[in-house]
Amino acid sequence: MKAVEASVSVRYAETDQMGVVYHANYYVWFEVGRSEFFDAIGLPYADMEKDGIFLPVIECFCRYKRSARYGDRIKVKTRVVEIKPTRVKLAYEIFREGDGVLLAEGYTEHAFTGKDGRPVNLKKSHPEVWNTLVKGIGQLGLNESV
Amino acid sequence: MKAVEASVSVRYAETDQMGVVYHANYYVWFEVGRSEFFDAIGLPYADMEKDGIFLPVIECFCRYKRSARYGDRIKVKTRVVEIKPTRVKLAYEIFREGDGVLLAEGYTEHAFTGKDGRPVNLKKSHPEVWNTLVKGIGQLGLNESV
Amino acid sequence: MKAVEASVSVRYAETDQMGVVYHANYYVWFEVGRSEFFDAIGLPYADMEKDGIFLPVIECFCRYKRSARYGDRIKVKTRVVEIKPTRVKLAYEIFREGDGVLLAEGYTEHAFTGKDGRPVNLKKSHPEVWNTLVKGIGQLGLNESV
Amino acid sequence: MKAVEASVSVRYAETDQMGVVYHANYYVWFEVGRSEFFDAIGLPYADMEKDGIFLPVIECFCRYKRSARYGDRIKVKTRVVEIKPTRVKLAYEIFREGDGVLLAEGYTEHAFTGKDGRPVNLKKSHPEVWNTLVKGIGQLGLNESV
Repeated sequence: MKAVEASVSVRYAETDQMGVVYHANYYVWFEVGRSEFFDAIGLPYADMEKDGIFLPVIECFCRYKRSARYGDRIKVKTRVVEIKPTRVKLAYEIFREGDGVLLAEGYTEHAFTGKDGRPVNLKKSHPEVWNTLVKGIGQLGLNESV
Repeated sequence: MKAVEASVSVRYAETDQMGVVYHANYYVWFEVGRSEFFDAIGLPYADMEKDGIFLPVIECFCRYKRSARYGDRIKVKTRVVEIKPTRVKLAYEIFREGDGVLLAEGYTEHAFTGKDGRPVNLKKSHPEVWNTLVKGIGQLGLNESV
Repeated sequence: MKAVEASVSVRYAETDQMGVVYHANYYVWFEVGRSEFFDAIGLPYADMEKDGIFLPVIECFCRYKRSARYGDRIKVKTRVVEIKPTRVKLAYEIFREGDGVLLAEGYTEHAFTGKDGRPVNLKKSHPEVWNTLVKGIGQLGLNESV
Repeated sequence: MKAVEASVSVRYAETDQMGVVYHANYYVWFEVGRSEFFDAIGLPYADMEKDGIFLPVIECFCRYKRSARYGDRIKVKTRVVEIKPTRVKLAYEIFREGDGVLLAEGYTEHAFTGKDGRPVNLKKSHPEVWNTLVKGIGQLGLNESV
């Protein structure tokens, strides 16, 4: 599957006294990648929320290989690894631009819920959004696990 | 006026690569002091929001004298410096516990608004909240500017 | 194994527009629990860094069950699940105080490194720290996996 | 004086439960603007730190006019308003791209220090950096207050 790419510059605010980016901030970069992903398939996440669809994180994971530093330019590659009517799982790779070294990789899994936080079956509650989502993912090359 | 005190331990996440706390995080400590202040006068901010009263920041300022570091225990002293039916201004002092050195001082000014972000005259829209607020501030020793 | 407990109040800064705490901030609470843990066994993390020992995160995970909200008081329970001369893994549980509901659980795994980020064998490089660490963990009830 | 422009997309992590960007995060956008500014005059801040020059914030201020929201694209305009051999003050304007509405404006004032946090007279300690800085600022149109 083709990944959607996003770029971020490391912010000083994201570093800690170890001189590198604080580990929890990689999840914010995952979020940047995720936003870009939903933009790419024509379903901006802000619009989904306006339609009453929320995607709270129910599980997340990250493995760190090399440190990101202030001054680095970072590339986030995002792809869907699994989608069901009740949840979606995205995987991320964090690269340092320039030398292309892989710094970290991980995933986030999201439930589909309403504004009240209750789980919804997206295929039933919002079939048109579900179709756009599945179609968009398919065009990016993911077919097998849908 | 007596100040309301709150304590926080510096978090590693709050440091940056300079080895000290990133400047913007002092505003989060101001927020901790502010929450403690509203608790102290019997108007927890979470309850105010449930009543439809919001206090967005319209102006803030901080002057830094000494650095806070991971491992430090911090004391936040909060007091009201001005209150009007449409806005409230709180001042903060950040001390290092132990030696009591003043690290920073500043203020935040807040509008009273509804959930939609529109300004409200709190005295008119929520007279009971206004009275509790003014009374609570009075008991903490601030009378002159009300 | 007995867990070390820490308490935090949810900060407004930690919420997002979903009205709940942003997922990545739970890792900061894990850090609060971890700091408390190292304090409890007599090895404050700030002191370890002064001795040239660093514990960068090499892997982390969190599963979310219920949402934390502004106004909630949170309890973090931290315990060691594995320790080797080159790495240590801690597990965390996040509870809402009051009703004691489990909100989230997860872990962080850390390498032992020098200031330069290079892995060290703590048992060899700092035997006294290693002994204090193992002894402290033992007193908290963890023996089996050391 | 011409301002240096930077663009950021609002991150979900930057919002709070009021549904808008948390006030302290505007200071992080100021930092993004500042980094871009130093890049523009040929003195990337990461390089300055490698040369032993640090610019801790000694004072900062922000006034908020309109809210920034997730989904917004933001423009940060940064310019120098005052520079002396011991300190520099930058001003920022935050605009919403698209309709160009001014959302906030503020400033940060920085001391020049060494790695130990002690103030330095940059003109004396690093004359070449000082000259590049003054020249760069001059080319951007600021002459009067140097």
